[in-house]
Amino acid sequence: MIETPYLLFLGDAPDQLAAKVAQGIKDWRPANAVGQFRMEGCKADVGLTDMTLEEAKAAGAKTLVIGVANRGGVISQEWKKVLVMALEEGFDLASGLHNLLRDEPDLVAVAEATGRALHDVRIPSVQYPIANGKKRTGKRVLAVGTDCSVGKMYTALCMDAEMRERGLKSSFRATGQTGILITGDGVPLDAVIADFMAGSVEYLTPDNDADHWDHIEGQGSLFHASYSGVTMALIHGGQPDALVLAHEPTREHMRGLPEYQQPSLPELRDVALTLARVVNPDCKVIGVSVNTQHLSDEDARAYLAEVEAEMGLPTTDPFRYGAGPLVDALLAS
Amino acid sequence: MIETPYLLFLGDAPDQLAAKVAQGIKDWRPANAVGQFRMEGCKADVGLTDMTLEEAKAAGAKTLVIGVANRGGVISQEWKKVLVMALEEGFDLASGLHNLLRDEPDLVAVAEATGRALHDVRIPSVQYPIANGKKRTGKRVLAVGTDCSVGKMYTALCMDAEMRERGLKSSFRATGQTGILITGDGVPLDAVIADFMAGSVEYLTPDNDADHWDHIEGQGSLFHASYSGVTMALIHGGQPDALVLAHEPTREHMRGLPEYQQPSLPELRDVALTLARVVNPDCKVIGVSVNTQHLSDEDARAYLAEVEAEMGLPTTDPFRYGAGPLVDALLAS
Repeated sequence: MIETPYLLFLGDAPDQLAAKVAQGIKDWRPANAVGQFRMEGCKADVGLTDMTLEEAKAAGAKTLVIGVANRGGVISQEWKKVLVMALEEGFDLASGLHNLLRDEPDLVAVAEATGRALHDVRIPSVQYPIANGKKRTGKRVLAVGTDCSVGKMYTALCMDAEMRERGLKSSFRATGQTGILITGDGVPLDAVIADFMAGSVEYLTPDNDADHWDHIEGQGSLFHASYSGVTMALIHGGQPDALVLAHEPTREHMRGLPEYQQPSLPELRDVALTLARVVNPDCKVIGVSVNTQHLSDEDARAYLAEVEAEMGLPTTDPFRYGAGPLVDALLAS
Repeated sequence: MIETPYLLFLGDAPDQLAAKVAQGIKDWRPANAVGQFRMEGCKADVGLTDMTLEEAKAAGAKTLVIGVANRGGVISQEWKKVLVMALEEGFDLASGLHNLLRDEPDLVAVAEATGRALHDVRIPSVQYPIANGKKRTGKRVLAVGTDCSVGKMYTALCMDAEMRERGLKSSFRATGQTGILITGDGVPLDAVIADFMAGSVEYLTPDNDADHWDHIEGQGSLFHASYSGVTMALIHGGQPDALVLAHEPTREHMRGLPEYQQPSLPELRDVALTLARVVNPDCKVIGVSVNTQHLSDEDARAYLAEVEAEMGLPTTDPFRYGAGPLVDALLAS
């Protein structure tokens, strides 16, 4: 568990896209961030107050979160000056970089000397159990995709936000690095050892109130040859009561696999539902979430209407047009 | 890669079952074992010549393989005396125990001083790639089960042995600890990090001659909530041309999951084939392998005939009655 609130480190980000993690935190958990820290030459701005370490500390910040991708996979000496100062000011550090904080001897030494924590959210911090398949109380919904990176995390975050706005009991359960940094907690599922994958998802979504919904962040795709095992473990560990089908209609092939095409939505529905019903016979597909970012407003609306008619399911782009129809369908299920 | 031939260490095995790994090596790769080493009080005997370390060394043995389960999860001081002597005699050590050789400081020190290797086959020794899903040359067959531990490894070993006897090109590809010790090589799939599971299976079964068959050792079950993700990765990383359905008809519930029942063979066939065809549209189910060890000969034959009629597929217990029908079906496919 990473202590909040955060100061978001944007470093010397070369462009806005490099600060995607910081932007996600600002968009989805604004209360978790007191400000942003930018170095000279930083080209990103997530719209928070620029703060020095001292100012952020005074504003209550507990953790400096690296909200920016590093260049060339190394933590630069310029970054390190700031990170070391932050540890000495009393901040913990949190990072989702491939290049781990714990692999930097100077950061480790200062963290030890100052008694601060280094959180590498790419690495599991828990010894997860083997899944036991037992029924848990509370409700769970999972987005499954026709491909990787089609909007499953945004679907879960949008539905969670919509439910909270309506005053309903709802949690977003992060299974990836960005999601973990946004919420401060979760399971880095792609880094879990095979035998414990489903168990880590059971651990992530424990018993809860009967009217509470966990929105489990999806990963991979049952149809993606590289990562389908991770998706399978999410379905069987998550025991979803409801599935949302997630799709991005402009892909020319499966992400990273030029020889493979996306399945149709009916194909995805049939396979995912069959597998989900192994652990939850009452599981239902309740809607379709389409990532329409590459379509005009007119084309997007036409496409959504077409899919809705074809599938007979509420269909929307929850980030662009709101998650209302999906939440309505979830509650009606 | 573990150097062969082996001397099989049976230690102070309390009964024959405790020496299951040694028995597997003796049964399936007899040429890999020059003899057995038994301590005082050993109650197991796999039928090889008893040898001292010196005798085994003279007979050409390169590696002392721990072919016995340890008691209470610790490598005892009595065992260690033999293991240390073996290192000093010039043997490498290989083990599939949960209690790792590399976690024993005294063994590590002696191995370093003598320049010998400690092989812990539960731990991957390779940095596996992420799967690329590209079509490989050669043929592959995978057994998928209605449950865990229904005879998938024995099915693969029996079919491989039958093909070799017929002079055909064939390899058994180990994905578990026992299989790796039997053959000296393989991938400990249940210990691989999630993102690299399918890639490790691609690595295990590379391009080969067009008429060569890889018999990939199955793991878990698509219908087993704890391990289905591992099975999924085997199917998508393995790209099987042929599937064999594996079943154990006397189970009362899924192994370790009292709330779950095994699926029917038609259910298994439909789900496994749909998923396998994502990566290999020509994949076929070619037969059924039944573990009849808990049935009388009469009951077993009646059950096999019944399944064969119901499924319309060659059905046998390859360990009890030979793998001929399955290999015939494989070659006809």
